[in-house]
Amino acid sequence: MIRYPNGQPYNPDSLKKPERKKPVAIDNFAKRGMGLEDDINLSNDFYNAQGRCLIYKRPTPIRVVRMDRIDRKKITEAYFSAKSTTDYNGVYKGRYMDFEAKETVCKTSFAFANIRPQQITHLENVTKQGGIAFFIIRMKSLNETYLLDCRDILSALKSQDRKSFPYVLLKEKGVLIAEGFNPRLDYLQAVEKKFFSA
Amino acid sequence: MIRYPNGQPYNPDSLKKPERKKPVAIDNFAKRGMGLEDDINLSNDFYNAQGRCLIYKRPTPIRVVRMDRIDRKKITEAYFSAKSTTDYNGVYKGRYMDFEAKETVCKTSFAFANIRPQQITHLENVTKQGGIAFFIIRMKSLNETYLLDCRDILSALKSQDRKSFPYVLLKEKGVLIAEGFNPRLDYLQAVEKKFFSA
Repeated sequence: MIRYPNGQPYNPDSLKKPERKKPVAIDNFAKRGMGLEDDINLSNDFYNAQGRCLIYKRPTPIRVVRMDRIDRKKITEAYFSAKSTTDYNGVYKGRYMDFEAKETVCKTSFAFANIRPQQITHLENVTKQGGIAFFIIRMKSLNETYLLDCRDILSALKSQDRKSFPYVLLKEKGVLIAEGFNPRLDYLQAVEKKFFSA
Repeated sequence: MIRYPNGQPYNPDSLKKPERKKPVAIDNFAKRGMGLEDDINLSNDFYNAQGRCLIYKRPTPIRVVRMDRIDRKKITEAYFSAKSTTDYNGVYKGRYMDFEAKETVCKTSFAFANIRPQQITHLENVTKQGGIAFFIIRMKSLNETYLLDCRDILSALKSQDRKSFPYVLLKEKGVLIAEGFNPRLDYLQAVEKKFFSA
Protein backbone atom coordinates (compact mmCIF):
# COMPACT_ATOMS: atom_id res chain seq x y z
CA MET A 1 0.00 0.00 0.00
CA ILE A 2 1.24 3.47 -0.87
CA ARG A 3 1.29 5.79 2.10
CA TYR A 4 1.68 9.55 2.58
CA PRO A 5 4.71 10.73 4.63
CA ASN A 6 2.35 11.24 7.57
CA GLY A 7 1.39 7.57 7.49
CA GLN A 8 -2.13 8.05 6.02
CA PRO A 9 -2.90 5.55 3.27
CA TYR A 10 -3.05 6.98 -0.26
CA ASN A 11 -6.60 6.95 -1.62
CA PRO A 12 -6.99 8.32 -5.18
CA ASP A 13 -10.78 8.74 -4.69
CA SER A 14 -10.25 11.32 -1.94
CA LEU A 15 -8.68 13.65 -4.51
CA LYS A 16 -11.81 13.68 -6.66
CA LYS A 17 -14.17 16.58 -6.38
CA PRO A 18 -17.29 15.68 -4.40
CA GLU A 19 -20.31 15.15 -6.64
CA ARG A 20 -22.65 18.08 -6.75
CA LYS A 21 -26.01 17.52 -5.20
CA LYS A 22 -28.88 17.88 -7.63
CA PRO A 23 -30.72 21.16 -7.13
CA VAL A 24 -33.86 20.66 -5.10
CA ALA A 25 -37.05 21.98 -6.66
CA ILE A 26 -38.03 25.29 -5.10
CA ASP A 27 -41.22 24.77 -3.20
CA ASN A 28 -43.42 26.74 -0.93
CA PHE A 29 -41.17 26.15 2.04
CA ALA A 30 -37.85 26.91 0.38
CA LYS A 31 -38.25 30.64 0.73
CA ARG A 32 -39.56 30.59 4.29
CA GLY A 33 -36.40 32.14 5.67
CA MET A 34 -36.52 35.23 3.46
CA GLY A 35 -36.98 38.71 4.79
CA LEU A 36 -40.01 40.92 4.37
CA GLU A 37 -38.33 43.01 1.69
CA ASP A 38 -37.57 39.96 -0.45
CA ASP A 39 -41.16 38.78 -0.05
CA ILE A 40 -42.47 42.14 -1.23
CA ASN A 41 -40.03 42.33 -4.14
CA LEU A 42 -41.09 38.86 -5.32
CA SER A 43 -44.76 39.79 -4.95
CA ASN A 44 -44.16 42.98 -6.96
CA ASP A 45 -42.42 41.02 -9.73
CA PHE A 46 -45.44 38.74 -9.84
CA TYR A 47 -47.97 41.59 -9.81
CA ASN A 48 -46.04 43.58 -12.44
CA ALA A 49 -45.71 40.56 -14.71
CA GLN A 50 -49.45 39.89 -14.38
CA GLY A 51 -50.18 43.54 -15.14
CA ARG A 52 -52.16 43.91 -11.91
CA CYS A 53 -50.22 46.98 -10.82
CA LEU A 54 -46.89 48.68 -11.34
CA ILE A 55 -44.90 48.96 -8.15
CA TYR A 56 -41.17 49.46 -7.80
CA LYS A 57 -38.71 49.69 -5.00
CA ARG A 58 -37.36 53.22 -4.86
CA PRO A 59 -33.64 53.37 -5.50
CA THR A 60 -31.68 54.48 -2.44
CA PRO A 61 -30.56 58.05 -3.01
CA ILE A 62 -26.78 58.16 -3.24
CA ARG A 63 -24.71 61.33 -3.37
CA VAL A 64 -21.88 60.83 -5.87
CA VAL A 65 -18.73 62.77 -4.97
CA ARG A 66 -16.01 61.40 -7.21
CA MET A 67 -15.71 59.38 -10.42
CA ASP A 68 -12.74 57.35 -11.57
CA ARG A 69 -10.47 59.36 -13.89
CA ILE A 70 -9.82 56.49 -16.25
CA ASP A 71 -12.88 54.25 -15.97
CA ARG A 72 -15.54 56.93 -16.48
CA LYS A 73 -18.33 54.59 -15.41
CA LYS A 74 -16.86 53.84 -12.00
CA ILE A 75 -17.84 55.86 -8.94
CA THR A 76 -14.99 55.98 -6.44
CA GLU A 77 -16.53 58.09 -3.69
CA ALA A 78 -20.18 58.33 -2.74
CA TYR A 79 -22.42 58.46 0.32
CA PHE A 80 -25.93 57.34 1.15
CA SER A 81 -28.14 60.39 1.26
CA ALA A 82 -30.28 60.99 4.34
CA LYS A 83 -33.15 62.32 2.27
CA SER A 84 -34.65 58.94 1.45
CA THR A 85 -38.39 58.63 1.99
CA THR A 86 -40.30 55.34 1.65
CA ASP A 87 -39.40 51.98 0.15
CA TYR A 88 -42.02 51.49 -2.53
CA ASN A 89 -44.28 53.46 -4.82
CA GLY A 90 -46.27 53.00 -7.97
CA VAL A 91 -49.70 52.83 -9.53
CA TYR A 92 -52.73 50.60 -8.91
CA LYS A 93 -56.02 51.19 -10.73
CA GLY A 94 -54.79 54.66 -11.69
CA ARG A 95 -54.29 55.62 -8.03
CA TYR A 96 -50.93 56.53 -6.60
CA MET A 97 -49.71 54.04 -4.00
CA ASP A 98 -46.82 54.53 -1.60
CA PHE A 99 -45.72 52.35 1.28
CA GLU A 100 -43.01 51.48 3.74
CA ALA A 101 -42.21 47.95 4.97
CA LYS A 102 -41.12 47.28 8.55
CA GLU A 103 -40.35 44.19 10.60
CA THR A 104 -40.35 43.80 14.34
CA VAL A 105 -39.52 40.91 16.66
CA CYS A 106 -41.59 42.40 19.45
CA LYS A 107 -44.78 40.41 20.14
CA THR A 108 -46.92 43.07 21.77
CA SER A 109 -46.40 46.24 19.75
CA PHE A 110 -44.71 48.03 16.88
CA ALA A 111 -42.37 50.79 18.13
CA PHE A 112 -42.68 54.19 16.44
CA ALA A 113 -38.91 54.52 16.76
CA ASN A 114 -38.78 52.24 13.71
CA ILE A 115 -40.24 54.98 11.55
CA ARG A 116 -38.21 58.00 10.53
CA PRO A 117 -39.93 61.41 10.81
CA GLN A 118 -39.49 62.21 7.09
CA GLN A 119 -41.30 58.95 6.24
CA ILE A 120 -44.30 60.06 8.30
CA THR A 121 -44.27 63.51 6.68
CA HIS A 122 -43.99 61.96 3.24
CA LEU A 123 -46.86 59.50 3.72
CA GLU A 124 -48.99 62.22 5.29
CA ASN A 125 -48.43 64.36 2.16
CA VAL A 126 -49.33 61.40 -0.05
CA THR A 127 -52.60 61.02 1.86
CA LYS A 128 -53.30 64.75 1.46
CA GLN A 129 -52.87 64.41 -2.30
CA GLY A 130 -55.41 61.60 -2.37
CA GLY A 131 -52.84 58.85 -2.75
CA ILE A 132 -52.90 55.47 -1.00
CA ALA A 133 -50.35 55.45 1.82
CA PHE A 134 -49.74 52.57 4.18
CA PHE A 135 -47.29 50.48 6.13
CA ILE A 136 -46.66 46.78 5.77
CA ILE A 137 -45.74 45.60 9.25
CA ARG A 138 -44.46 42.11 9.93
CA MET A 139 -44.65 40.74 13.45
CA LYS A 140 -41.81 38.28 12.99
CA SER A 141 -42.30 36.36 16.21
CA LEU A 142 -46.00 35.87 15.46
CA ASN A 143 -45.48 35.10 11.76
CA GLU A 144 -48.10 37.64 10.77
CA THR A 145 -47.92 40.53 8.31
CA TYR A 146 -50.39 43.41 8.36
CA LEU A 147 -51.28 46.29 6.09
CA LEU A 148 -51.87 49.38 8.18
CA ASP A 149 -53.34 52.58 6.75
CA CYS A 150 -50.95 55.49 7.25
CA ARG A 151 -53.80 57.51 8.79
CA ASP A 152 -54.11 54.99 11.65
CA ILE A 153 -50.44 55.45 12.48
CA LEU A 154 -50.79 59.23 12.20
CA SER A 155 -53.76 59.43 14.55
CA ALA A 156 -52.04 57.13 17.04
CA LEU A 157 -48.91 59.29 16.88
CA LYS A 158 -50.85 62.50 17.42
CA SER A 159 -53.60 61.66 19.86
CA GLN A 160 -51.67 59.43 22.22
CA ASP A 161 -48.56 59.62 24.29
CA ARG A 162 -47.68 56.09 23.28
CA LYS A 163 -44.31 55.25 21.82
CA SER A 164 -45.60 52.24 19.95
CA PHE A 165 -48.59 50.87 18.07
CA PRO A 166 -50.07 48.04 20.17
CA TYR A 167 -50.60 44.64 18.56
CA VAL A 168 -54.23 44.61 19.71
CA LEU A 169 -54.86 47.79 17.73
CA LEU A 170 -52.90 46.43 14.75
CA LYS A 171 -55.23 43.41 14.69
CA GLU A 172 -58.24 45.71 14.90
CA LYS A 173 -57.25 48.44 12.42
CA GLY A 174 -54.89 46.57 10.12
CA VAL A 175 -55.63 43.96 7.48
CA LEU A 176 -53.88 40.62 7.80
CA ILE A 177 -52.04 39.91 4.54
CA ALA A 178 -52.50 36.42 3.11
CA GLU A 179 -49.25 34.58 2.47
CA GLY A 180 -48.77 32.03 -0.27
CA PHE A 181 -46.49 30.93 -3.04
CA ASN A 182 -47.29 33.46 -5.73
CA PRO A 183 -47.64 36.19 -4.72
CA ARG A 184 -45.70 35.55 -1.52
CA LEU A 185 -47.60 38.37 0.16
CA ASP A 186 -50.95 39.18 -1.40
CA TYR A 187 -50.96 42.74 -0.18
CA LEU A 188 -53.06 44.01 -3.11
CA GLN A 189 -55.95 41.99 -1.70
CA ALA A 190 -55.47 43.91 1.55
CA VAL A 191 -55.24 47.23 -0.34
CA GLU A 192 -58.48 46.35 -2.12
CA LYS A 193 -60.18 45.61 1.20
CA LYS A 194 -58.89 48.71 2.96
CA PHE A 195 -58.99 51.37 0.25
CA PHE A 196 -61.42 50.22 -2.45
CA SER A 197 -64.35 48.68 -0.59
CA ALA A 198 -65.97 51.69 1.02
CA MET B 1 9.57 104.00 -19.26
CA ILE B 2 10.24 100.70 -17.55
CA ARG B 3 10.01 97.74 -19.91
CA TYR B 4 9.80 93.99 -19.45
CA PRO B 5 12.64 91.91 -20.96
CA ASN B 6 10.34 91.13 -23.89
CA GLY B 7 10.00 94.82 -24.68
CA GLN B 8 6.40 95.19 -23.40
CA PRO B 9 5.91 98.35 -21.35
CA TYR B 10 5.43 97.84 -17.60
CA ASN B 11 1.93 98.75 -16.50
CA PRO B 12 1.26 98.34 -12.75
CA ASP B 13 -2.54 98.44 -13.30
CA SER B 14 -2.41 95.27 -15.34
CA LEU B 15 -1.27 93.37 -12.23
CA LYS B 16 -4.32 94.36 -10.20
CA LYS B 17 -7.16 91.94 -9.92
CA PRO B 18 -10.10 93.02 -12.05
CA GLU B 19 -12.87 94.52 -9.93
CA ARG B 20 -15.70 92.17 -9.23
CA LYS B 21 -18.97 93.11 -10.78
CA LYS B 22 -21.72 93.63 -8.25
CA PRO B 23 -24.14 90.72 -8.18
CA VAL B 24 -27.23 91.45 -10.21
CA ALA B 25 -30.55 90.87 -8.45
CA ILE B 26 -32.04 87.56 -9.53
CA ASP B 27 -34.97 88.35 -11.71
CA ASN B 28 -37.10 86.53 -14.18
CA PHE B 29 -34.31 86.59 -16.74
CA ALA B 30 -31.48 85.53 -14.50
CA LYS B 31 -32.41 81.88 -14.74
CA ARG B 32 -32.86 81.84 -18.49
CA GLY B 33 -29.72 79.81 -18.99
CA MET B 34 -30.86 76.95 -16.74
CA GLY B 35 -31.57 73.54 -18.10
CA LEU B 36 -34.93 71.87 -18.37
CA GLU B 37 -34.24 69.63 -15.40
CA ASP B 38 -33.49 72.58 -13.11
CA ASP B 39 -36.67 74.29 -14.27
CA ILE B 40 -38.73 71.21 -13.47
CA ASN B 41 -37.06 70.70 -10.10
CA LEU B 42 -37.80 74.31 -9.14
CA SER B 43 -41.38 73.96 -10.32
CA ASN B 44 -41.76 70.77 -8.27
CA ASP B 45 -40.39 72.47 -5.16
CA PHE B 46 -42.97 75.20 -5.68
CA TYR B 47 -45.84 72.78 -6.31
CA ASN B 48 -44.88 70.57 -3.36
CA ALA B 49 -44.60 73.55 -1.02
CA GLN B 50 -48.02 74.78 -2.14
CA GLY B 51 -49.46 71.31 -1.63
CA ARG B 52 -50.71 71.21 -5.23
CA CYS B 53 -49.09 67.84 -5.92
CA LEU B 54 -46.29 65.64 -4.69
CA ILE B 55 -43.70 64.98 -7.36
CA TYR B 56 -40.12 63.90 -6.88
CA LYS B 57 -37.16 63.24 -9.08
CA ARG B 58 -36.38 59.54 -8.98
CA PRO B 59 -32.96 58.82 -7.54
CA THR B 60 -30.58 57.37 -10.13
CA PRO B 61 -30.20 53.66 -9.38
CA ILE B 62 -26.63 52.96 -8.33
CA ARG B 63 -25.17 49.50 -7.83
CA VAL B 64 -22.92 49.59 -4.76
CA VAL B 65 -20.01 47.16 -4.99
CA ARG B 66 -17.66 48.11 -2.19
CA MET B 67 -17.75 50.09 1.04
CA ASP B 68 -14.80 51.65 2.83
CA ARG B 69 -13.43 49.36 5.55
CA ILE B 70 -12.88 52.11 8.07
CA ASP B 71 -15.41 54.81 7.16
CA ARG B 72 -18.51 52.60 7.01
CA LYS B 73 -20.60 55.34 5.43
CA LYS B 74 -18.31 55.80 2.43
CA ILE B 75 -18.92 53.91 -0.81
CA THR B 76 -15.65 53.30 -2.64
CA GLU B 77 -16.86 51.41 -5.68
CA ALA B 78 -20.21 51.74 -7.41
CA TYR B 79 -21.71 51.90 -10.88
CA PHE B 80 -24.72 53.57 -12.44
CA SER B 81 -27.32 50.89 -13.06
CA ALA B 82 -28.78 50.57 -16.55
CA LYS B 83 -32.21 49.75 -15.14
CA SER B 84 -33.28 53.36 -14.64
CA THR B 85 -36.72 54.24 -15.97
CA THR B 86 -38.11 57.78 -16.01
CA ASP B 87 -37.03 60.99 -14.27
CA TYR B 88 -40.08 61.94 -12.23
CA ASN B 89 -43.08 60.39 -10.53
CA GLY B 90 -45.61 61.23 -7.91
CA VAL B 91 -49.23 61.95 -7.14
CA TYR B 92 -51.64 64.62 -8.38
CA LYS B 93 -55.31 64.60 -7.34
CA GLY B 94 -54.92 61.01 -6.21
CA ARG B 95 -53.77 59.89 -9.67
CA TYR B 96 -50.35 58.44 -10.33
CA MET B 97 -48.21 60.67 -12.55
CA ASP B 98 -44.97 59.67 -14.27
CA PHE B 99 -42.92 61.60 -16.79
CA GLU B 100 -39.64 61.99 -18.57
CA ALA B 101 -38.02 65.30 -19.54
CA LYS B 102 -36.08 65.74 -22.77
CA GLU B 103 -34.40 68.61 -24.56
CA THR B 104 -33.51 68.93 -28.20
CA VAL B 105 -31.75 71.62 -30.23
CA CYS B 106 -33.36 70.41 -33.45
CA LYS B 107 -35.95 72.87 -34.79
CA THR B 108 -38.08 70.54 -36.90
CA SER B 109 -38.53 67.37 -34.86
CA PHE B 110 -37.81 65.39 -31.71
CA ALA B 111 -35.72 62.30 -32.46
CA PHE B 112 -36.93 59.00 -30.93
CA ALA B 113 -33.28 58.08 -30.41
CA ASN B 114 -33.47 60.38 -27.36
CA ILE B 115 -35.80 57.95 -25.63
CA ARG B 116 -34.54 54.67 -24.26
CA PRO B 117 -36.69 51.57 -24.95
CA GLN B 118 -37.21 50.79 -21.25
CA GLN B 119 -38.61 54.29 -20.77
CA ILE B 120 -41.21 53.64 -23.46
CA THR B 121 -42.11 50.27 -21.93
CA HIS B 122 -42.34 51.81 -18.48
CA LEU B 123 -44.61 54.68 -19.55
CA GLU B 124 -46.75 52.29 -21.60
CA ASN B 125 -47.23 50.17 -18.47
CA VAL B 126 -48.12 53.26 -16.45
CA THR B 127 -50.78 54.12 -19.03
CA LYS B 128 -52.15 50.56 -18.87
CA GLN B 129 -52.51 50.90 -15.10
CA GLY B 130 -54.54 54.07 -15.53
CA GLY B 131 -51.72 56.39 -14.56
CA ILE B 132 -50.84 59.69 -16.21
CA ALA B 133 -47.75 59.26 -18.39
CA PHE B 134 -46.18 61.96 -20.51
CA PHE B 135 -43.06 63.59 -21.83
CA ILE B 136 -41.96 67.17 -21.29
CA ILE B 137 -40.11 68.11 -24.47
CA ARG B 138 -38.17 71.34 -24.78
CA MET B 139 -37.36 72.64 -28.25
CA LYS B 140 -34.33 74.63 -27.12
CA SER B 141 -33.80 76.55 -30.35
CA LEU B 142 -37.43 77.62 -30.42
CA ASN B 143 -37.64 78.42 -26.69
CA GLU B 144 -40.79 76.32 -26.34
CA THR B 145 -41.62 73.49 -23.94
CA TYR B 146 -44.43 71.03 -24.58
CA LEU B 147 -46.25 68.40 -22.63
CA LEU B 148 -46.85 65.36 -24.84
CA ASP B 149 -49.09 62.47 -23.83
CA CYS B 150 -47.12 59.22 -23.83
CA ARG B 151 -49.85 57.64 -26.01
CA ASP B 152 -49.10 60.12 -28.81
CA ILE B 153 -45.46 59.07 -28.81
CA LEU B 154 -46.46 55.40 -28.69
CA SER B 155 -48.82 55.61 -31.64
CA ALA B 156 -46.25 57.57 -33.66
CA LEU B 157 -43.61 54.95 -32.83
CA LYS B 158 -45.86 52.07 -33.81
CA SER B 159 -47.85 53.29 -36.80
CA GLN B 160 -45.13 55.14 -38.64
CA ASP B 161 -41.70 54.45 -39.99
CA ARG B 162 -40.52 57.80 -38.75
CA LYS B 163 -37.46 58.13 -36.56
CA SER B 164 -38.65 61.33 -34.98
CA PHE B 165 -41.72 63.17 -33.79
CA PRO B 166 -42.23 66.17 -36.10
CA TYR B 167 -42.55 69.65 -34.59
CA VAL B 168 -45.79 70.23 -36.51
CA LEU B 169 -47.34 67.22 -34.77
CA LEU B 170 -45.90 68.31 -31.42
CA LYS B 171 -47.68 71.66 -31.83
CA GLU B 172 -50.90 69.87 -32.73
CA LYS B 173 -50.93 67.06 -30.14
CA GLY B 174 -48.86 68.59 -27.35
CA VAL B 175 -49.78 71.32 -24.89
CA LEU B 176 -47.48 74.35 -24.77
CA ILE B 177 -46.31 74.81 -21.18
CA ALA B 178 -46.54 78.36 -19.83
CA GLU B 179 -43.25 79.66 -18.46
CA GLY B 180 -42.98 82.16 -15.66
CA PHE B 181 -41.19 82.94 -12.43
CA ASN B 182 -42.96 80.63 -10.01
CA PRO B 183 -43.54 77.97 -11.13
CA ARG B 184 -40.86 78.23 -13.80
CA LEU B 185 -42.77 75.70 -15.90
CA ASP B 186 -46.47 75.49 -15.12
CA TYR B 187 -46.77 71.95 -16.38
CA LEU B 188 -49.64 71.08 -13.99
CA GLN B 189 -51.79 73.50 -15.98
CA ALA B 190 -50.92 71.48 -19.09
CA VAL B 191 -51.64 68.19 -17.23
CA GLU B 192 -55.01 69.59 -16.21
CA LYS B 193 -55.79 70.53 -19.81
CA LYS B 194 -54.64 67.22 -21.28
CA PHE B 195 -55.77 64.67 -18.71
CA PHE B 196 -58.50 66.22 -16.59
CA SER B 197 -60.70 68.18 -19.00
CA ALA B 198 -62.37 65.41 -20.98
